[in-house]
Parts: sequence; structure tokens; C-alpha cells
Amino acid sequence: MAEVKVGIINVTGYIGMEIARLVHLHPRVRLASVTGRSAAGKEIGEVSPHLADIGLSIKPELDRVDLAFVALPHGESAAAVVALLERGIKVVDVGADFRLKDAEEYKRWYKVDAAAEYLEEAVYGLTELNRERIAAARLVANPGCYPTGAILALAPAVSESLIEPDIIVDSKSGVSGAGRTLNLTTHYAEINENAAAYAVDGHRHLPEIVQELQGLAPGPALSVTFLPHLVPMTRGILTSCYAMLAGGKAAEGEKGREQVLKLYRDFYQGEAFVRVVAVPPQTKQTWGSNLCLIYPTVDLRTGRLMVISCLDNLVKGGAGQAVQNMNLMLGFPEETGLEGLAVYP
Amino acid sequence: MAEVKVGIINVTGYIGMEIARLVHLHPRVRLASVTGRSAAGKEIGEVSPHLADIGLSIKPELDRVDLAFVALPHGESAAAVVALLERGIKVVDVGADFRLKDAEEYKRWYKVDAAAEYLEEAVYGLTELNRERIAAARLVANPGCYPTGAILALAPAVSESLIEPDIIVDSKSGVSGAGRTLNLTTHYAEINENAAAYAVDGHRHLPEIVQELQGLAPGPALSVTFLPHLVPMTRGILTSCYAMLAGGKAAEGEKGREQVLKLYRDFYQGEAFVRVVAVPPQTKQTWGSNLCLIYPTVDLRTGRLMVISCLDNLVKGGAGQAVQNMNLMLGFPEETGLEGLAVYP
Amino acid sequence: MAEVKVGIINVTGYIGMEIARLVHLHPRVRLASVTGRSAAGKEIGEVSPHLADIGLSIKPELDRVDLAFVALPHGESAAAVVALLERGIKVVDVGADFRLKDAEEYKRWYKVDAAAEYLEEAVYGLTELNRERIAAARLVANPGCYPTGAILALAPAVSESLIEPDIIVDSKSGVSGAGRTLNLTTHYAEINENAAAYAVDGHRHLPEIVQELQGLAPGPALSVTFLPHLVPMTRGILTSCYAMLAGGKAAEGEKGREQVLKLYRDFYQGEAFVRVVAVPPQTKQTWGSNLCLIYPTVDLRTGRLMVISCLDNLVKGGAGQAVQNMNLMLGFPEETGLEGLAVYP
Amino acid sequence: MAEVKVGIINVTGYIGMEIARLVHLHPRVRLASVTGRSAAGKEIGEVSPHLADIGLSIKPELDRVDLAFVALPHGESAAAVVALLERGIKVVDVGADFRLKDAEEYKRWYKVDAAAEYLEEAVYGLTELNRERIAAARLVANPGCYPTGAILALAPAVSESLIEPDIIVDSKSGVSGAGRTLNLTTHYAEINENAAAYAVDGHRHLPEIVQELQGLAPGPALSVTFLPHLVPMTRGILTSCYAMLAGGKAAEGEKGREQVLKLYRDFYQGEAFVRVVAVPPQTKQTWGSNLCLIYPTVDLRTGRLMVISCLDNLVKGGAGQAVQNMNLMLGFPEETGLEGLAVYP
Repeated sequence: MAEVKVGIINVTGYIGMEIARLVHLHPRVRLASVTGRSAAGKEIGEVSPHLADIGLSIKPELDRVDLAFVALPHGESAAAVVALLERGIKVVDVGADFRLKDAEEYKRWYKVDAAAEYLEEAVYGLTELNRERIAAARLVANPGCYPTGAILALAPAVSESLIEPDIIVDSKSGVSGAGRTLNLTTHYAEINENAAAYAVDGHRHLPEIVQELQGLAPGPALSVTFLPHLVPMTRGILTSCYAMLAGGKAAEGEKGREQVLKLYRDFYQGEAFVRVVAVPPQTKQTWGSNLCLIYPTVDLRTGRLMVISCLDNLVKGGAGQAVQNMNLMLGFPEETGLEGLAVYP
Repeated sequence: MAEVKVGIINVTGYIGMEIARLVHLHPRVRLASVTGRSAAGKEIGEVSPHLADIGLSIKPELDRVDLAFVALPHGESAAAVVALLERGIKVVDVGADFRLKDAEEYKRWYKVDAAAEYLEEAVYGLTELNRERIAAARLVANPGCYPTGAILALAPAVSESLIEPDIIVDSKSGVSGAGRTLNLTTHYAEINENAAAYAVDGHRHLPEIVQELQGLAPGPALSVTFLPHLVPMTRGILTSCYAMLAGGKAAEGEKGREQVLKLYRDFYQGEAFVRVVAVPPQTKQTWGSNLCLIYPTVDLRTGRLMVISCLDNLVKGGAGQAVQNMNLMLGFPEETGLEGLAVYP
Repeated sequence: MAEVKVGIINVTGYIGMEIARLVHLHPRVRLASVTGRSAAGKEIGEVSPHLADIGLSIKPELDRVDLAFVALPHGESAAAVVALLERGIKVVDVGADFRLKDAEEYKRWYKVDAAAEYLEEAVYGLTELNRERIAAARLVANPGCYPTGAILALAPAVSESLIEPDIIVDSKSGVSGAGRTLNLTTHYAEINENAAAYAVDGHRHLPEIVQELQGLAPGPALSVTFLPHLVPMTRGILTSCYAMLAGGKAAEGEKGREQVLKLYRDFYQGEAFVRVVAVPPQTKQTWGSNLCLIYPTVDLRTGRLMVISCLDNLVKGGAGQAVQNMNLMLGFPEETGLEGLAVYP
Repeated sequence: MAEVKVGIINVTGYIGMEIARLVHLHPRVRLASVTGRSAAGKEIGEVSPHLADIGLSIKPELDRVDLAFVALPHGESAAAVVALLERGIKVVDVGADFRLKDAEEYKRWYKVDAAAEYLEEAVYGLTELNRERIAAARLVANPGCYPTGAILALAPAVSESLIEPDIIVDSKSGVSGAGRTLNLTTHYAEINENAAAYAVDGHRHLPEIVQELQGLAPGPALSVTFLPHLVPMTRGILTSCYAMLAGGKAAEGEKGREQVLKLYRDFYQGEAFVRVVAVPPQTKQTWGSNLCLIYPTVDLRTGRLMVISCLDNLVKGGAGQAVQNMNLMLGFPEETGLEGLAVYP
């Protein structure tokens, strides 16, 4: 079996590091080349001591590989991705540049031009919803961390017309989601023992959530409010979703709850990394693992569907889903290299 | 001026301790007597070293005082409160036993009988809404921590009919709100770096929120979903509220936001401890202080009102509000002893 | 190749859980049976959702296995271990009952009788120092978390007579080291944002440290002060050791530092899980991994050796070292199943 | 009584903010003017919402005040201090520029020139040791956070010749001690759940500790090793000190412990802000207060004195001690404005 080589562009950010951790133990691919924005020339273990065993030097340019992960900020990944595609290298882009199908919508939210000619080709990499297209893709746009949790929480309800189109998504994220770039907001003494909403006027992950959910919805236009919050932990996103049950879609009382649970279990039947759970999940139950835990229930007093999901923003919300997508693109079983359990406590 | 003496029943819980901290510096009253559930006979500084300066022994029964704070669990405070009232002592009860006006509703949620004969007399101690009645009361039922943040966030909107009756309240609380009783849920290694929703089937603070908001609402019955979450910090509650703007109540776009902000500012005009702020607040900005910060805005894409509030659950959500109520009951200026700024960072 | 079956007694404690996590991915053994103190009859995923994939029921008694990990509190493990040995099952005991060779010393520190007849047979499981004897053992006494970090930090210096016998060991531990039993000390609101020394009159890990270091010391009796501290994090132990360099053992200035570094590198040459590093290590660089990082240096102003070590108390300081020992006892390569990198950040 | 006006240079750093918090409630002085390095022109509440009640604009230059606190980084405060002195304004400098009496030693550690002509005049502001000189000073050099805890812990032992001159000081600090300047070391995701030693080759606070302790020591030159560690909390320094008891200075066994405790209690007799405690203290017991808690004991196995101290690095280790010094300099009772109890939990 010929060895399959993969590379990481910008291994020094949190998602890049985490891809390196996962790929290092992957039995079917070899991490062959890594680049870093300001660390070129250094050993990976100098910059990230926990990755010292990998034993690679950080280079200014990526060597020849079969598939590359691009972990650059928005606006920067487009050019890097295009260059890789032109060298015939498959790409999982963990940045935002190819997620939105509408180039104008992209520009409105990100203030830079989209790589318009590739938007159509790029496949939105929420594995559970786009499995076949991902397997055939040469460019996958890995979802944002919030959209992964929100879309997985709502996909069964939206696609089965279980709810009214007014949807509220209230997310609580650990601080690593803000990345490694220095900022007063993520300075330890400022955010420790603190909680706050942010991006109150609209977070860039909103159009991604709407685009994907609307694509699943047979009915009218969705009206989604998405409010993200920072809470003082390193990893994890907890998302609570609220929407009124559509008339006649579920029975009254406990029976309705059971119907909802069954609908969700059926929807995610056989999925390796989505678990519909019977008690409210906790973010730490996914720490370091590729799982998304989902708890759907009904507020019996108001007839409202409530869905709570959680995941590790750097794994299922980033690096893990990227590896899951790589597995499909390279023809490996989807779970390969992602079997690790969460590290708890 | 004759000295005014106050006492604390159960000074060894977190709210009890915090009342002691605040009262110790209060210029108009003297902390004269404290009891503790299992610590009787010990010095307060043995049990709570940070309170050593107070220099009191914990006693099994409260000495004669002018006003007592009762900080017992629900079901236990009723009897203690009644005994104090019968001794002619004014009471601020920081527990739940006198908050709900409907004895059957109380029993449904708390599984114990209410002290029915005092429910009517007890004044719900959300100071900003019930100031005159509190000043005249001999028994004040201090609000729960979640209801304080939720009701203050929604009172202007509800009483001015700004919103539709479908309301979602999503709260994120620090762990001290769960008290000092040992529990695996609040064991450090379990809840640190973790976030979760809880009481998904209905939290005991919900009927309190509904009772008070409904009392303000000129219109139809409110339909409130309240979902609390634990996040890994010691103090602080962040509450995000969502409801559709009622038709014609606010202009489109930025102008509507300004109208909403003005409505909130007018409503809380002159309040010492409620601040309507112009940027999203952070829980840590209230650490140790009696402030509640409120940020109202409109999600322009969906026409939804979003109100974010934050406070220190042990101060404005507990001990601070109790002292604020005491000030009114004893005829002192409301701010007395509560002027301390938040401890930041 | 016949399948090798292992079991865990008390899988519901933190070390037991962590052994389960590691063994689940181990390619050479199968986790075949688990017991739990109060959870018998439940599925492992009910008690520990992050372990749900393991798919075992918790039983009151261990089934037939080839090797068992015993994760019981001191005083309880002795009887369980003896019963297993008599069934012909090899044992790694992660508790304290077989660590001290002197039965009276054990009783002095632990206040219960030792299983005296097995103390001689039991091998102290600090893998790097006792590799051959562990490989031949049927009973391994896995070291305490503090002793692992302290002994590995000092072994080169002590065995090479690099230092005077007066040694200070100042350790800072995450809270999971205190286990899962509820206690006010480890109640979230008490220990979060807090740091304190404890066991100031003598910690039970002291005799273990002295016993093992003295066994390496060709010279006079060691005089060791060991002071543990709790710091607010879940995992990790950072240990700083101080001792005067023995006369003539190292050159002055930078050259002496290099000699010390070389001595340490030579001592741990070829070790898979001990890394002598060139910059001060951080506990988080070992989170979830089986590494112990060691940084030796010289305080040039005073001629004092300073050695800083760090590890994950639940992995190299517990479950990981237990699996490392199992590998030796079962004839597998020592690294098997322990290749995972740290989860960072 | 004429109003006394004080000012703060650089109110936007953590020590500056904390001085503002304390002075705001001070009954004898008024905060009249504040400057900030990059925030000139803004309201203090815009930059620091928790200080909004103060109601001052941040100015580029300090107005006329009676006493100024200078909270600038080392190398920057010297010029600002000299300018204030020349305007006849008393100064408490919380930076490092006037702490070391030896200008060359200062330059060696700080790499910039000292304001040599004022070094002799400046009084080292460890209040408990230099009370009379501080009261008479026009320039006080407020101690560093680590030296405050270390010197207070060791002063009784050193000045009474209780110990040998070989001293180890192992300190664990919260992250706010590193200030508000952005740095990867203090980026939340990096330092949260992490612990590490730093400045292993020598921390700038070492010469300060040696200078002050040596000044108390009647005997030979001290040989001090000082190793600081960062632990994941916002506030607090815990310091553990180790030194062999000098021969004949204390009895064997428990009696020696009592002698040591008595010696410490006598030394700090009557001090408002230093407490010699009978059980090991915790940093959180001082959160927000001006207390330093000290626990001296003897390791009976080795005859070693162990002294554990803790304080809030921003209060007694910074702003609180600065106000304490201000009180002396302005002729007020030393405790004025510093009576607040710790905020716990």
C-alpha cells in the first residue's frame, strides 16, 4: 500500500496543532510537511512542545503531499487553497473562505473578496449531511465551530418540518475558539471568571448556519437569531436551540418528547460521531474527542422544542471533522484515527 | 442615634457569608448575632477565615436583633421566619419559602408545604419594582438569583408591551449559585472546564419569573421558557432574553434600537444599582458589587428584542439585594453600605 | 495470537476511568470486565458518558481476566489484590497498600495494617527505575502521583551523588489528584481561583519518595522536605526540587549547567516517556499524555541544583504508568497504547 | 478639613485600576485626576466599566494633586516621578524604578539607567518594616508583589536569627501579576489549566528580596534562591519559604513549633494587615483585601522552618499597600479605606 502523505499549512494555530495531533496517530497517512506563519525554520517541538514527537521542521512552503489542510485566517486561505488545487493537491480548508456559496454574502460578512470561481465546487464539509459529495470532492470547506454544533442540533427538526421557522441559537464557547492571536478579550485576567455575549450585531457564522439549514428546509424561509457567548474554559461549545413545535407535529406531554427523541435517533442512526443522548450532555464529555452529543426535548409548558448540543470546538468543530473529511476524500473508513475517547475529567 | 442590630441565620452558606461581609462595613447597623447549621460554638473566623475580623461566635439561636437575614434552604426557612416575626423581628428571607404567592404552586415546585398564612404579607424583594412596599414590610422574600437578572432584563419590555408574550430566557451561572452543599455536579474536577444545561424539565426559579413578569404585563398570558446553564466560574450570572418585538412598537433598523435603549433608560432612570449600558456587559464587571448591568438591543434581521443582563449572583442576586432591602425597611438611604465597586480583574 | 483480557476494579474513580480510556484503544489487550463501588448493574456509559463506547456493564465482581488494575483507596486494595493473586491474576495496584516496604511505616502513615506478607514481592512500579523487576512481577505497586514526578526529577542527581542530602520538594497539583470523593476542599467554589499548601505536617507520599530515593543513594541518609500544594486546575503536577550541589561535582557557571543537563540526558537516554527538556516545562504540555518532562538547572548565584518536573497526575502519575507497567508484565513493547500526544491547549 | 486630592498615572493597568477602586471609597481623599497611556480623552468607564461610578475623564497629563500614584512600567516611571516631585507632589511609585538602592544592581536587572539621585531618598514601602520613614517620605517605592509576600514571611526569622542563611523561596502567582500587556504566556488558552516555573535564571524581584532581608539580618550574607511560578488564577500569591533552623534557636518537636509561632506573633503584634494564622492559609481568603496571612511551622523530620504566606498581588502586593503608604504619608490612620473584607468565594 503506497504511503499517503498529508500536510498542514499554518500548524502553529490551534486548529493546525490539533490536526497534527490527530494525524500523527492516524494509521493510514503520514504527516509529511508543515508550514507556519512566523515560525519557519524552527522544529515543531520548539514552537509546540507537545508535538515534539512529530519531528518535523516548519517550512515556508508545503512540500508535495496528497492532501493538505489549510488553517489560515479568512481572506488568507483562498489564495493558498487555489495554489494547492492547481498543484493537484486535495484540500480541506478549515478557514471560512469557501463556506458561503454566495460571493456577495461572503464579502458582506468578511469584508474581502471571495474566490468566486471555486465557491461552487467547494463542498461544505459537515460530514453527516454531505457525505457522498465530500467523498468525491477535491476541495472541502470545513464548517465553523459554531455552525457544526448548531446545524447538527437543528438538522433533524428542520428537515422534518418539526418546528416553526423562528429559531433561536444561543451558544456558549470556550476561549480557544477565538484562536491564538493576542487580544485583550482573550487575555487571561480579562476572560477568566467572566462570561459575556459578543458579536451581538451578527456573527460571521450566522450566514453559514442559515445557508445550510435553509438547504434542508422544505418550507418557508427560516428566521434565525444566533447569539454567541464566551465562557471561561479552553475548549467546548454548548449550544441551546429553541423553536416552537409546528402544529400537529408532536403529541402532547411526555409522548411528544418521546416522538422527538425517536425522530432524532432515526435521523442520526448509524452515525459514528453524533450521539443522541437521553440526559443533557456536558461539553467536557467531548474534550479531545470527535463526538457531538445532542439532547432534544420539549418544554411541555410552552410547546417549544429545545435542543442542546455540545462538542469540542477544536475537534468535531475543527480538526477532527477535517480528518473525518480527509478520510472520506482518501477512501478510508470515516472513523479512522478518530477513535480516541474524551479525556475526562 | 440608637444602634441598630442585625443578625444572620446560617452564616456559613455562601449567601450568609456575603451578607456578613457587606454588613460588617455598613455604617448604620451592627452585625450582632449569627447562627450556623453545624458550626455552633465556633468562632466565625474558624469557619470562614476571611470573616475573622467580625469577631463573633456562631450560636445555636439568634440573639435579640432588630432585623434578621434568614439564609436557610427552602422548606427550612419558613419555620425560622415565622418564629422571628413572632418575636417582633423584621426579616429578609433569602430563601424561597415566601416568594411564590400561590401556596399550591409552591408545593408543586418545592414538594413541601408553604407557610400559607404569611404568603400574602411577604413582599417580593426585587427592590427596583417594589420599593414602597418593601419599605413598609416586616417580611421581605428576597428574589432568587436567576429571577433578579431575568426580571430586571425584561421588566421594561413587558410592562411597556414592547414584545410578544413568547419569551426565552437563557441563563449562564457561576457555580457558587449551587451553594455550599457537596454534590458531584459541583465537585471541582467535574465542573471545571465544563458547561452544561440543567433543570431542563423546569427550574424552580421559573414560576418566580413568570409570577413577577405577569404582574407587570397589561396584556395576555406570558409563555416563558427558562433554561439555566452552569459555566465554570465562581460568581456571576449572564442572562440572554429573546422575544419578538410587538408590531408597531419600534421603528425599523437602528432607529428601533435607539428607541428600545431609550425606553430602558427611562424605565431605570435614577436607579443606583441598575445600569442600562451601551455595549454588551460582562459578568466580571459586577464581581462583588451590587450592580445589575442591562444591554437591550434588536436583532435587525429578525425583529427580535435581545436583552442581556449580568450581575453577581451572591450580591445583587442575593446578599447585596438583601442589604438593599434592609436599608429600605430600616429607613436608610438605599445605597448605604453598597457603594463598593466591582473587584476587577 | 490469543486475546489478552484485562479488568479494572473500581472503574468509577478518576484513575480507573483513565485506565479504561487508555486500555480501550490498546491494540494488544481487551478490556473485558469492570467493577465499581456503588455503580454495579449500570452501564459504564451511564456513569461515565465519555466511556460509553466501551459498552460494558459494571459488575460487583471481576470476571476472569489475565491482568487486573485495582483502583481502590488505601486500606481497601490489599484484600482485593490478594484475592486476585490467589486466582492467578496479575495485578497492577494503583493504590498505596503495597508501595512501602516497611509494614510499620505503612501503618504509621495510613493507620491501617499492611498486607505484610506481600510487601516483599510487590515491585514498586516506577517503570524507568525498575524495568526488569516489573517485567517479571505478578504484583506491581504503581507509584503515587507526587512520587512519580519527584523521584524522576531527583533520581539522576541522587544516584550520581550530584547533590547534598538536604532536599526540598515543592509540588503543585491539580485538583483531580484528590480523587472523586466529595469534600469541601475540592468543592468548586472553594478551590477555584485559590491556592494553598496542605498536609503541612507530612503527606503520605513522603515515605514513598524517601524510600525510593534512598535506595538510589550511595551516600548518607537523605533529609527530604516535601510540601504539596493545590492549585486550581484539573490535571497536572509541577514539582520544583532544590538541593545544594555537592562540592566538586559540577563546574562553576554555565559550564556546570551544561554538565548537569548532560548528566540528566545520559541518565534518561532512550526513555520513551521521560524527556529532559531545555526550557522550563509546563504541565499542560503533558495533558492526557504519558510524558514526564524534566528541566534541571543550576541557580548560579547560590550553587543550588533546581529540577523542575511536570506530568499529568492521572496518566504518567497514575493510569498511564499503570498501562506502561502492564505492557512490561505482559511482554509487550513498553510504549504500546501510550503513543497519544498531549491534548493542547 | 481641606479636601485632599490624589491622582493616578496610568489608571488603565491592573494596579492603577485597583488603586482607583480603593481610593474611590476612601473617606479622606478624593480621586481628582487620572491619566492613561493610550486612553487619553476617554471616560474611565469606557475603558474600565467597573469604574464608571468614578466619573472622571482620562487625561494626558495629571492635574494638580497632593499625592500621586505612579503605575508605569519600569524605566518609564523614573522620569514621571521626578517631574511630580519637582512640582511638589508626593509620590507612591508602584513600579520598580526606585526600589533598589544600588544603581548598578538596578541596571544589571532592568537594563536601563536608574534615577540615581533619588534612590537614597526613596523609602522602600513595605509598610510594616519602614513605617516611620514612610510617614516622613515624599517618595515611596512600593514593593513588588512577590517581595511583599516573601519578605513578610521571612522578616521575623531573619531578624531574630532563627534560621541558617540558606533560604529557598518558592512562589505561585496568579496571572494578573504579569500585567495587562498582551503576551502569549498570558493568553487564556495557553495558561488556563497550566502551571509552570519561569524566570528560572533569576527574577527581577530577587534583588529586592535580598536587599530588604539582608538589611534585617544581623548575621552573615544570605543565600536566597527565589523561583516564581504561574498558576491558573487571576489573583493571589502563595509563597512557601524553607530554611534550616539555626542550632539552639528552637526546641525539638511540637514545642519548637510553638516557639516559632510565638516569635512570629510577637513580631507582628498589633499589625492591621499581617495575620499570623494557625492553619495553612489560602490565597482566596485575601481576594480583594489588604491582608497578608502568614503560617510559620517546623518540618519536624528535618528541623526545617517552613513559612507559607499569601496575599492578593493587586492589593497588599500592589494597590492596597500603596494606599496604606499614602495614609501614612498624609497623616491618616493606616487602615483608612482598607477595611474591606475579602470577597469569598
